[in-house]
Formats: sequence, structure tokens, C-alpha cells
Amino acid sequence: MNMGCRELYPTLQYLGSATGYVEDILEIVDKLLLFEDLRLPEIESLCSFMHCFGAPRDTTLLQEGSEGDYLLIVLTGSVRVVKVTPDGEKVVAIVGPGASLGEMSMIDGEPRFASCVTVEPTDFAVLTRRDLNEVLLNMPRLGSKFLLVLLQIMTRRLRQASVNSLPNLSGASV
Amino acid sequence: MNMGCRELYPTLQYLGSATGYVEDILEIVDKLLLFEDLRLPEIESLCSFMHCFGAPRDTTLLQEGSEGDYLLIVLTGSVRVVKVTPDGEKVVAIVGPGASLGEMSMIDGEPRFASCVTVEPTDFAVLTRRDLNEVLLNMPRLGSKFLLVLLQIMTRRLRQASVNSLPNLSGASV
Repeated sequence: MNMGCRELYPTLQYLGSATGYVEDILEIVDKLLLFEDLRLPEIESLCSFMHCFGAPRDTTLLQEGSEGDYLLIVLTGSVRVVKVTPDGEKVVAIVGPGASLGEMSMIDGEPRFASCVTVEPTDFAVLTRRDLNEVLLNMPRLGSKFLLVLLQIMTRRLRQASVNSLPNLSGASV
Repeated sequence: MNMGCRELYPTLQYLGSATGYVEDILEIVDKLLLFEDLRLPEIESLCSFMHCFGAPRDTTLLQEGSEGDYLLIVLTGSVRVVKVTPDGEKVVAIVGPGASLGEMSMIDGEPRFASCVTVEPTDFAVLTRRDLNEVLLNMPRLGSKFLLVLLQIMTRRLRQASVNSLPNLSGASV
């Protein structure tokens, strides 16, 4: 589907199409907000557009400030989200199986907002913007269902971030 | 298309389908992020799903904490976005033609995050969640294009809100 995907992580173990990991995905699907509302055949279709990698501990999967228009789904292990702030580097979150990372850059093509580093050996799946466009083109109903779930996730985060930023509130988010 | 739309604002002047306002929309389209990337026939199609209203000054168009799964597009006039904070009511923004308001509740069905009150006589268009679903069902390509633009707008806001909330940063948004 996407011959260039493997080159996103040339030094990591390439595990092949996510089609081979549908069962693993079903095991964590209750934590996998991105696949919320998707039925099994839809998950299988989406997996055929995704590729899996295995990374050892302390591997940087996404680098703050770097280019990259793809998202990751953590399948096993755990990942630390780190952001450089005026007060130094700060751990924003530690996430595990089912977490998705990198959506913002996949959507807007802007540099990564934070870095993601494996805390332990971690398997993850990749969905690129190009593959998402393929889904939208070839399976528009599945594609728009996926976009709606993504919108819900972003909205939840935006509400939370807006509450956190109330002292500095600016911009209309209602 | 949507017989119930008029009842969203029973006391306001109902201006009819947005189809009658395509020319006005084209005049502000460079400020209308939601219609970014849409071609004229797509704008016309989308307008056939939207309805317009006229409101006098000091009219509350959206009420913080209330239910409501629709968004507004400001066509003329201006609107004050107001949020109740621990330090009292705070004006978050004043927006004019081309601004969209209420996307978050349209997407997640949660209560309104802030109130929107007209500063001067204001015409606006309404897109309900039900109408968006109709667009997705009947014009999936236009629908997913619209969702992608909406995702871009939400992502831009999320990046900004995340920067503003850095001192309180929590949750993985990369």
C-alpha cells in the first residue's frame, strides 16, 4: 500500500502490515480511542493501511520540532511524552497500549509538538497522512467515521487544554 | 432539509436557507477558514444544508453550559465570546465575519464551553450535527473534505491552547 512507510524507521525492527496484528489490536481496543465505534471489518480494513514496528527502550519515536505527517498507535510497552519548556524538559505524560501519538502533525503537517521516547521495548503501528488520504478516497464511509473519532479526541483535548490555559485564554474555542 | 433548524432561534429573524447567501459567503470566504479548500460548487452544496438568521445586538447566540450540537458561521456584524472563570466573566475574543463558533459541541455533544453574544446586529448561518451527518452520507467526498478542514482548525487551536497551558501541561497532544 505504502512502500515508503518502512523508511520512517530504517533502524527499527519492521513487523509488517498491521493486518498481522489485528488480534493484538482487538485485545486493547477498549483503550484505543481512535478505533472507537469501528466494527471488526472496519478495523481490518484500516489495519491494511498501517504498518508495525518494534523499538527497544529509550528510542525516540517522534522528535519535537521535526517534520512528519503520520501518527502512531502504541500496541505494547510504554512511551514517555516530553516537551521542552522555558523551565527545561518536562514529562507531559507516560502512555501505554492503545494510546495514539502524533495526530496533530498528521493533520496539519506542522512540526511535532513534543517528543515521544519509549520507556520499555514497544511495538507500535503507523498511519501516514498519505494512507489516510487513500482510506478517504477508497472507503469514504470508513474514512469519515475515522475523522469523526479523531475530531472527538481532538475536541476532548482542546476542552482540557482550554481549561488549563484559562489564565491565558485567547482565541475562540466554543 | 432540516425542518427543526428554525426552532433553534424561534425569536430571531429567520432568513432562510444559506443558499440565498452564497454571494455574501463568497465575499468573506478568505476569512472563512471552514470553507478553505472548498470550490464554488462545494460551497453551494454545503450552503443547501445550512440556515441563516439575523440577530439584533446583545443577543446570546450560544450559552455556556447549554446543550446544542450545531455550529455558527458569522456572516455580518460581530460577536463577543465570553467565559465564566474563577475570576469572573472574561471576554475571550471578539470575532467578525467568517468566524465559526460552537464546533466543539457540534462534534462531541458536550455543553457549550463559552457564551457568544452579538456586539452589533449580526447575521449568521447554522450547521447542525444532523445536517453534517446528511452531508457525510450523501456527499462523502465533500463531507470528509469539510471534516479535514475542521480537524485543521481544531489542531491549530489545540497547539495554541497547549502552549498557553504549558505551566499546567497534562495529556498527550503531539
